[in-house]
Amino acid sequence: MSDFIKLSHGSGGVEMRELLMKLIVNRVEDKLKRYGDGVGLDILDDGAAIRVGGKYIVVSTDSYTVKPLFFPGGDLGVLAAAGSINDVLMMGAVPVAMMDSIIVEEGFSIIDLERIIESFLRVLREENIALIGGDFKVMPRGEIDGVVMNTTAIGLADRLIIDKPAPGDKIIVSDYLGDHGAVIMMYRLGLAQKTDILEKSLLRSDVKSLTKLMIPLIERYGEYIHAARDPTRGGLAGVLYEWISETRNIILLREEDIPIREPVRRYSEMLGIDPLYLASEGAAVFSVDPSIADEFVSFIHSLGFRNAKIIGEVKESSRLSGKVILETVAGGLRILDPPRGEIVPRIC
Amino acid sequence: MSDFIKLSHGSGGVEMRELLMKLIVNRVEDKLKRYGDGVGLDILDDGAAIRVGGKYIVVSTDSYTVKPLFFPGGDLGVLAAAGSINDVLMMGAVPVAMMDSIIVEEGFSIIDLERIIESFLRVLREENIALIGGDFKVMPRGEIDGVVMNTTAIGLADRLIIDKPAPGDKIIVSDYLGDHGAVIMMYRLGLAQKTDILEKSLLRSDVKSLTKLMIPLIERYGEYIHAARDPTRGGLAGVLYEWISETRNIILLREEDIPIREPVRRYSEMLGIDPLYLASEGAAVFSVDPSIADEFVSFIHSLGFRNAKIIGEVKESSRLSGKVILETVAGGLRILDPPRGEIVPRIC
Repeated sequence: MSDFIKLSHGSGGVEMRELLMKLIVNRVEDKLKRYGDGVGLDILDDGAAIRVGGKYIVVSTDSYTVKPLFFPGGDLGVLAAAGSINDVLMMGAVPVAMMDSIIVEEGFSIIDLERIIESFLRVLREENIALIGGDFKVMPRGEIDGVVMNTTAIGLADRLIIDKPAPGDKIIVSDYLGDHGAVIMMYRLGLAQKTDILEKSLLRSDVKSLTKLMIPLIERYGEYIHAARDPTRGGLAGVLYEWISETRNIILLREEDIPIREPVRRYSEMLGIDPLYLASEGAAVFSVDPSIADEFVSFIHSLGFRNAKIIGEVKESSRLSGKVILETVAGGLRILDPPRGEIVPRIC
Repeated sequence: MSDFIKLSHGSGGVEMRELLMKLIVNRVEDKLKRYGDGVGLDILDDGAAIRVGGKYIVVSTDSYTVKPLFFPGGDLGVLAAAGSINDVLMMGAVPVAMMDSIIVEEGFSIIDLERIIESFLRVLREENIALIGGDFKVMPRGEIDGVVMNTTAIGLADRLIIDKPAPGDKIIVSDYLGDHGAVIMMYRLGLAQKTDILEKSLLRSDVKSLTKLMIPLIERYGEYIHAARDPTRGGLAGVLYEWISETRNIILLREEDIPIREPVRRYSEMLGIDPLYLASEGAAVFSVDPSIADEFVSFIHSLGFRNAKIIGEVKESSRLSGKVILETVAGGLRILDPPRGEIVPRIC
C-alpha cells in the first residue's frame, strides 16, 4: 500500500476496499460492528440498521462531492437527496426522514447554494420525507472547492434485504446503466464544449429517487429479492463483484441484454472506457429468485420503468468462483475485472 | 444579505441563523419538519428524533473541518466522535451507534489518516458504541484542504430533553469553558510558535465524550433538566441566546462564577476576545429546576467533574426579554451580544 492517498482510493473499487478494510473495518472488534440485532460493518451493504420495537431503523450516510455542481439531468442537491434515499430503499426500507450537512467555500454564490438546496428540498417534498436536522460549515477560500453535501437518510423496515445472491438467481436491472457517469465524464474531460448540441442533449444524468420503483417491489416481492443495489461508483461491475467475490458462485451476464443508451455506448468506446464500470444514480440491480423473475420484470415495466431486463444469472462454479463473466455479443466469454483505478474523480 | 458566503455564515452566530432560516428552515413545510411524534427542524436543537415502538431514536449529524488536524488535547478523530456523541447525549439519549463519512485530499498521508481514524475508533471502543457504516471520498489535490469528517451518531431515549428553560431555573456548567476554542485560536493566529513552552502546555482542548457525565444525570435528574447543550461554536453566549432569544425571559449570569482557566482568560484578554464566545468540546450547560440545583451540582462533582458550578438563573422580564445579562466582577450589569462575525474559522 502506498503511503499517500490516491484518487483510486476513492473510486469504489479494489483499492478503496483494501484501504478501508485496513484502516477501519479490520480494526473494529466484531461486537462493535453492529448494534444489537441490527446490521452494520459485518455486512458492508449500502446502509446499516438498528432494531427497535420490532422494526428495523435503516440509516445510510454519504458525502457528495460531485463536480460540476450543475449537470444535465440534475445537480448536487438532487444527487445528495436521491443518493441516500436510494441506499435506504436498497436495504428494503421506506425512507421517512433526512439530515443534511453542508460544507461550503467562503465566497461561494448564495444564489447557487439556494438552487442546490431547492433541488434537494424538492426531492424530499415529492417523496414526503421529513428534513429533521442538519449542520452547516464554511471553509476559507481555497480550502474546499465550492460545496460538498453530506446526507443521512433514515428509513423503516419490517425485514431487511441483506445482499446474498443464490445460485439460480436472475440478475435484473431496472433501467439503462451508466448515464450519470457518462455525463460527469463528458464534463470532467473537457468534452462538453466540443460535443455538438444534438449529441449533448442526448446525454443526461439518470439521478432520481427510486421510491416509486422500490416500495411496490419490496411490498410485493420482498422475500424473493436476494440482493438489491444501486450501481453508483464502480458501476454494474462494482456491485456484482461486491456480491460475488467472496462466494463459491459466479455471475454470468449476457452483454447484448444489458441496457445501455446509444450515446453512452458511443462515448465510452471513444474514450476506451467500459460502460459496465460507469455510475448510475437512478437505476437498481437485483438478484431475484428465478421462480418470479419474469413477472418481477413485467411488474417493473408496469411501474413505468420500461427498460428493465434480465441480464444474467448466478451459477455455482468451483473453477471460476468469485468472478463476473460476460458472454459477449460476438459469442465469446470474458472475465470482467473488478473495478480498479479511477475513471474521473468526484463522480458523486 | 450579501450575495456570497462569508466566514461568519459558518460561525454558529446571528449570520448563520439568518442564512439557514432563509435557505432551509423557512422553505420546509411544517409537516415535513419532523417525522411522526418525533422532533426535527421544529425545535432546532443539537439533534433530531423519530419515535418507533415507544422509544425515541435520536440522530445527530455534523461535519468536522477543524484545522489544525492535530492539536493539544486531541485531533480531528476524537472531535468527530465526541462531537456527535455529545449532541445525542444533550437530547437525553444513550448513544449506541455511529456512522462516519470521510473526505480526504489526494496526496494526504495515510499514516496521518490512520492516526485520525484510530483516535476516532478509540472513543467508540471506550464508550462501547458500534460503528455500523460509513462512506469514503477522495477529492483531487488542491480541492479540499487535508481531510474533513462527517459523523452521524444514533442514540436511544425514553424521554427527550427539549430545550425550554423556565423562569427560576438555575444555569449550570459542568466544567471550564472555552478551552477548545482558545487552543485552535492560538494555532490559527500563528501564536503557537511564539508562545513559551510552559504557557503552551497549559492550553489544551477539552474535547471528550460526555457519556460519563450525561448518562447518570439523565437517569437521576432527567425530568428536572429543562435544557442541556454543549457550547461549541458560539460558546456559552451562543447557547444561552439560542435558548432565550425568542422568549419573554432573560438569563442573568454572574461573571465571577463562570469557570474559565487562567491561561484561557489571559489569551482572550490579549486578543481582545470574550471567552464567553469561545467553543468548548467537552463541557455541558444546563438549565435545571431550582429545587434540585444544588444537589445536581454536587452530583456532577461526584462524577469527577469538579469544576461544575451554578453560574446564573433564568428570570422573567418584560423590559429586557430575550437578553443574556452579565453581572460583572466589578458589580455592573452588561447585556451580552449574541455571537456575530467570526473569531477563527474551522474551529470544529
